[in-house]
Amino acid sequence: MSALGHVKPQSMAFAQALPLRSGSVLRDYTLMYETYGALNAARSNAVLVCHALNASHHVAGRYEGDPKGTGWWDNLIGPGKPLDTDRFFVIGVNNPGSCFGSTGPTHLNPATQQPYGADFPVVTVEDWVDAQVRLCDALGIEQLAAVIGGSLGGMQALCWAMRYPQRLRHCIAIATAPNLSAQNIAFNEVARRAIVTDPDFHGGHYLAHGVVPKRGLRVARMIGHITYLSDDTMEAKFGRSLRAAVSGAADGDAGRTPRYTTQDIEFEIESYLRYQGDKFSEYFDANSYLLITRVLDYFDPAREHGGDLSAAFASATAKFQIISFTTDWRFSPGRSREIVKALLDNRLDVSYAEIAAPHGHDAFLLDDARYHGVLRARFDRIAREIEASSHGLGGMRIVP
Amino acid sequence: MSALGHVKPQSMAFAQALPLRSGSVLRDYTLMYETYGALNAARSNAVLVCHALNASHHVAGRYEGDPKGTGWWDNLIGPGKPLDTDRFFVIGVNNPGSCFGSTGPTHLNPATQQPYGADFPVVTVEDWVDAQVRLCDALGIEQLAAVIGGSLGGMQALCWAMRYPQRLRHCIAIATAPNLSAQNIAFNEVARRAIVTDPDFHGGHYLAHGVVPKRGLRVARMIGHITYLSDDTMEAKFGRSLRAAVSGAADGDAGRTPRYTTQDIEFEIESYLRYQGDKFSEYFDANSYLLITRVLDYFDPAREHGGDLSAAFASATAKFQIISFTTDWRFSPGRSREIVKALLDNRLDVSYAEIAAPHGHDAFLLDDARYHGVLRARFDRIAREIEASSHGLGGMRIVP
Repeated sequence: MSALGHVKPQSMAFAQALPLRSGSVLRDYTLMYETYGALNAARSNAVLVCHALNASHHVAGRYEGDPKGTGWWDNLIGPGKPLDTDRFFVIGVNNPGSCFGSTGPTHLNPATQQPYGADFPVVTVEDWVDAQVRLCDALGIEQLAAVIGGSLGGMQALCWAMRYPQRLRHCIAIATAPNLSAQNIAFNEVARRAIVTDPDFHGGHYLAHGVVPKRGLRVARMIGHITYLSDDTMEAKFGRSLRAAVSGAADGDAGRTPRYTTQDIEFEIESYLRYQGDKFSEYFDANSYLLITRVLDYFDPAREHGGDLSAAFASATAKFQIISFTTDWRFSPGRSREIVKALLDNRLDVSYAEIAAPHGHDAFLLDDARYHGVLRARFDRIAREIEASSHGLGGMRIVP
Repeated sequence: MSALGHVKPQSMAFAQALPLRSGSVLRDYTLMYETYGALNAARSNAVLVCHALNASHHVAGRYEGDPKGTGWWDNLIGPGKPLDTDRFFVIGVNNPGSCFGSTGPTHLNPATQQPYGADFPVVTVEDWVDAQVRLCDALGIEQLAAVIGGSLGGMQALCWAMRYPQRLRHCIAIATAPNLSAQNIAFNEVARRAIVTDPDFHGGHYLAHGVVPKRGLRVARMIGHITYLSDDTMEAKFGRSLRAAVSGAADGDAGRTPRYTTQDIEFEIESYLRYQGDKFSEYFDANSYLLITRVLDYFDPAREHGGDLSAAFASATAKFQIISFTTDWRFSPGRSREIVKALLDNRLDVSYAEIAAPHGHDAFLLDDARYHGVLRARFDRIAREIEASSHGLGGMRIVP
């Protein structure tokens, strides 16, 4: 299997303001994106990859001089991989409001020439999809072969199918839900409160104060992380192991007695969570965290149809692949089955795979053979459809 | 059903230092406790009630002049109630390290004459049980009819059965576990980090600075609260309802459009959690929160037996009633079944009830007919045993 060569981020500026669902608009914005593989002559082999809470346009491959910075879905996307860049033209895009280069809260507000901070307008899945459509327009792609995403990325894929039915042929929504449950919102809210009540938050204008609410970000990430992993994975990976003493530690914790401490690390799971929190607080923007958890909270396509999800999909025409993971308690299989039911109510072409995987919500990012097998089969089918369609075209050309 | 009259908290000072599992000792400590009902002549009808994270010795009844301050298990305990104070002498005790009057972090450290703060020694379930045994000694109770508790209270009941097998006849452990899972510890750790990283925490010596780390306490409580409720209960109680506008609100949220806000309350569940957090931060001590979550983390009786829970119960002789709730994802029924298995391995007298209840972990505090039915039957059995035993005694006296 060959690897992608060095990949490069690109940016595209949009002069036309983006009207937002909130009633506000986003002016003079830029989207960062990356592409992998080549667009075919018929412009029919493009696949859009939508990111979730804390990912970016850097979906696959590596940048020159940064051997560690592998794209977040590199196990899925590349030459010979399930989403094969020898066959498909793959697009990753960073959504506005995020913090990886596309216009977001750390950027200058054209109205004030100060960083947006907390004044960045509230965005939604619908707004993101609208921005993605404009990017596709600019790239000359009228119809995507597929839109794919996991978690919040899956919500974007579903939104494409509802909002722009003519502009995609396949919708692949993984480990996602038709909306957040009260418990999902509750976890988001606690994370937000940790950030907003950090004295370094300054009402969201921390940049003007030269600080970052890292304490809040750390706690927010720790909470999130617990919900990404299954109970079983945590148990298998950490259990009740005591953290080995820093020096002279024997293997495992056999014979170790606890330190009896309330503030220091005692258990391995604590060490792991603190590490995850620290790392996250170094690179993620606090206002982006607030915005993107709200993108999750607000997604609820059934709401405008009196809670009827089937009605929300009434105009959809795509072929659907829905995937869930048995141990995902954040977006449980039951939530995916709600989506499948709504699609079947509309007599749409839908395949559903419930993958027995131990890794919880995180499974959508991992390299599980059955999961990747489902995706490989789906992309094979899409590639064959593209081939058949161009042969058909070719045949028509030959006929005198 | 008659009510308890006004109840009164009592205190008992202990001059003899309490040796702690950590190797430290607790000197000159006081326990707050309450009793309900009358101790019989044989001193055989005493029932000890053990509290969980945030409760106290005030288990049942009301204080004079405080009609709202009902004891936390008042639905279970009182005249004619399942734990009938017309038949039993019930004892509630506040554990050391807590913050409801028994010696804790806000009290003066006799060594320094300053509040203990973060210097309060780390306590464990075993230490608490040792302190409870001394209280029973002081009350002249050689053997308890039963020890009962839910959650962390259930751990104390189990510890009594292992550590002082001759001093209780029945052990009633509800919604509890033989130890915390990695996920349980993880939630505790996030809560602790929220408290410890609050700038008002001052390394645990906030009282000396005249402040309280309320921000951290609020977040800690919000996290805890999510884990006490079932996903279903949250969904049924709050769902995705938007919080009604403060003034001129119509019923429900029909027709309401979202406010599109990242920092203000949008959903009802957010309002509820913030309220719970605010309330808690007004009365609970931050150092007590750290200590008591550690009491939970450290409980692991199987550890000293190479992980063999059955071996940990080898010396137990009590009769056991174990109860779990189907929707409790904090201490799931599977954890109770581990306890039941270990008890059966020791051929102990054990009844297990898995109650189908929608309320999650909180169910142990609620008035569920089947749940209270199980407890009523158990206490009836205990009362009959006490009666039979005193009749036996009477009979023996008559026999010449």
